[in-house]
Amino acid sequence: MQNIMDIDTVALNGHEDAVRIIDQTKLPVEIDLKDLRYAREMYDAIYLLEVRGAPAIGVFAALSMYVLSIGRDIDANVELPVGMEPGDMPPDAPEEFHQWFHKTADYLNSSRPTAVNLSWALKHMQDLVDAHPDADRKTLLPMLHDLAIAIRDEDIEVCRRIGEYGVTLIKDGDGLLTHCNAGKLATVRYGTATAPMYLAKERGMNIRVYCDETRPLLQGARLTAFELLSSGLDTTLLCDNMSGSAMRAGFINAIFVGCDRVAANGDTANKIGTSVVAAVAKQYGIPMYICAPTSTIDMNTKTGDDIVIEQRKAEEVTEMWYEKRMAPRDVKVYNPAFDVTDHDLIAGIVTEYGIARAPYEESFQEIFKKKAENPIR
Amino acid sequence: MQNIMDIDTVALNGHEDAVRIIDQTKLPVEIDLKDLRYAREMYDAIYLLEVRGAPAIGVFAALSMYVLSIGRDIDANVELPVGMEPGDMPPDAPEEFHQWFHKTADYLNSSRPTAVNLSWALKHMQDLVDAHPDADRKTLLPMLHDLAIAIRDEDIEVCRRIGEYGVTLIKDGDGLLTHCNAGKLATVRYGTATAPMYLAKERGMNIRVYCDETRPLLQGARLTAFELLSSGLDTTLLCDNMSGSAMRAGFINAIFVGCDRVAANGDTANKIGTSVVAAVAKQYGIPMYICAPTSTIDMNTKTGDDIVIEQRKAEEVTEMWYEKRMAPRDVKVYNPAFDVTDHDLIAGIVTEYGIARAPYEESFQEIFKKKAENPIR
Repeated sequence: MQNIMDIDTVALNGHEDAVRIIDQTKLPVEIDLKDLRYAREMYDAIYLLEVRGAPAIGVFAALSMYVLSIGRDIDANVELPVGMEPGDMPPDAPEEFHQWFHKTADYLNSSRPTAVNLSWALKHMQDLVDAHPDADRKTLLPMLHDLAIAIRDEDIEVCRRIGEYGVTLIKDGDGLLTHCNAGKLATVRYGTATAPMYLAKERGMNIRVYCDETRPLLQGARLTAFELLSSGLDTTLLCDNMSGSAMRAGFINAIFVGCDRVAANGDTANKIGTSVVAAVAKQYGIPMYICAPTSTIDMNTKTGDDIVIEQRKAEEVTEMWYEKRMAPRDVKVYNPAFDVTDHDLIAGIVTEYGIARAPYEESFQEIFKKKAENPIR
Repeated sequence: MQNIMDIDTVALNGHEDAVRIIDQTKLPVEIDLKDLRYAREMYDAIYLLEVRGAPAIGVFAALSMYVLSIGRDIDANVELPVGMEPGDMPPDAPEEFHQWFHKTADYLNSSRPTAVNLSWALKHMQDLVDAHPDADRKTLLPMLHDLAIAIRDEDIEVCRRIGEYGVTLIKDGDGLLTHCNAGKLATVRYGTATAPMYLAKERGMNIRVYCDETRPLLQGARLTAFELLSSGLDTTLLCDNMSGSAMRAGFINAIFVGCDRVAANGDTANKIGTSVVAAVAKQYGIPMYICAPTSTIDMNTKTGDDIVIEQRKAEEVTEMWYEKRMAPRDVKVYNPAFDVTDHDLIAGIVTEYGIARAPYEESFQEIFKKKAENPIR
């Protein structure tokens, strides 16, 4: 099996004329790399979940806007290649290019309207163009390249630092549990919850990793188990309801999970089931750590009660991939996408500026002070 | 939808010449009743899980031995009907009938060798025959009928009494959570964990019930959600990892689950995931009750650590019904069939002789004293 750590989840290809992704719809069966050059392909890649994970989508969007902006250079003097549409051709003149750039960014943004990192990255690229109203396409091209690469590098650096802080919480021989996919496949290189695991491996530590399969969509089985196994880690898959048995048996020494949003008091919203792992960990005295880029800490959200949880459709639970009915017709289904883990169940929140501990509100103030004094980008 | 409470899971048919079962392999799509008359059909019904659940299998085996013993009466003067094999014909004379009876019981017993209730019920029927070495088939037939019916009635009575005690723990308006299927479909009529719910409904109480889907085999989604919904209860299905969210939201007031074995100190082995529900319930201050026929309480097992847990095959987790691979090839899988819930997570153990409370060892002594003084059968 190819080591997935040798391949970035999203990147420019060797000629820097396409965005190269690991097509995640092909996992866990094979690592299929796909080079994307046209807006429609990029839209579909997000829409069809070929690229997924908030940070990875953000980086993908930035790289995509750069690649789309060089379209005419590749295709000068040739007919439109297969798959390219007339709208993919960026004009040169300042005003026309600016208009085209915003239109194209809006198009990509519409592929997944709720993805915050997607609109965040696109806005950064658009702000750069807006800051240079008189610049033509050729002038802007190297600046767009550098900003996209900087957004990519920031993701790698944030994850790497989370790994550096997180690995201090791991002892040689530990068994570590994670839930869902806050892994390399959701970012460019290290993941958030998985970063401490990959760094432990880089340093020659001997660890065992356990992945919750994560119903209903099985991101843990399909993605996390795949990437950890592919990286050479000793990986064991279990169903979400088996964590109690594994913890009672003494297999687990610490838990690392990602997060979608952290409130000012440390309450954390993450993939459904995270709060279950946390309650079980408390019963067996096992520390649970949240791996959280500071961008996910929202000081304007006071507590977890202020976080609105998306309810998803029943078919995800009642049917197996829409193929086979596994529950009675017309049964009501409770299918929240996320849950809130109370801060008192969390042993620490690992950020790229250090590990926050209770009381979190104060600890976060220090983290944000460090960030202001020493920004990554 | 037909109300499943109008049909016993296993029964004699109207003519008392066949065992009638709800074919559970057809659930949750339809209620399909099947009349079984021949040994091969009965063996297959157990082997293929058309009938399942320890108590239901025991009653099924007892009724089957009676039906097989009347085989010749039905078929006198006619050719062997379709599906009947020569070995299905019971001889009349004492010695031949006794030999045939033991051979047939051994054959049924081999359909699922680890099912304790199966061999328990067959042994009861065999003991009756052995106690009358000089009796011929015709003499034994009414005695076999009455014993099989008594075994059935005992199951109904045990479940009913568990329901009577359990319903005292429920308030009008409560939300109740259960895990796996300790339901009517695992017994003849009321189930164990579901008995308090069905009795609450009989009494006109307004309750909501929540079913964990119960990975990997989804008994909660396929069976429990089906039978509760079919009985007219307000039923909601959720994935095993959603209990934290449901409890934090205040939907759940009490939890009722079944058990496979209870140790003398109250530690309880039940379907994998039960200990997870228990730990989450503790976090949110919700009482968890084990519904346990006294036959499952083993005073010779000191604590849960003495209970050996069966590990099942990886494919149950990595493949969806052996159709589609959902995890990387060669990943290790942790797939225990059961887990142990520590007694300190249990609010009470509901038996057919009352509700045991901590300290359980003493409480069980009283329960067994009552049982000895006033046996059901």
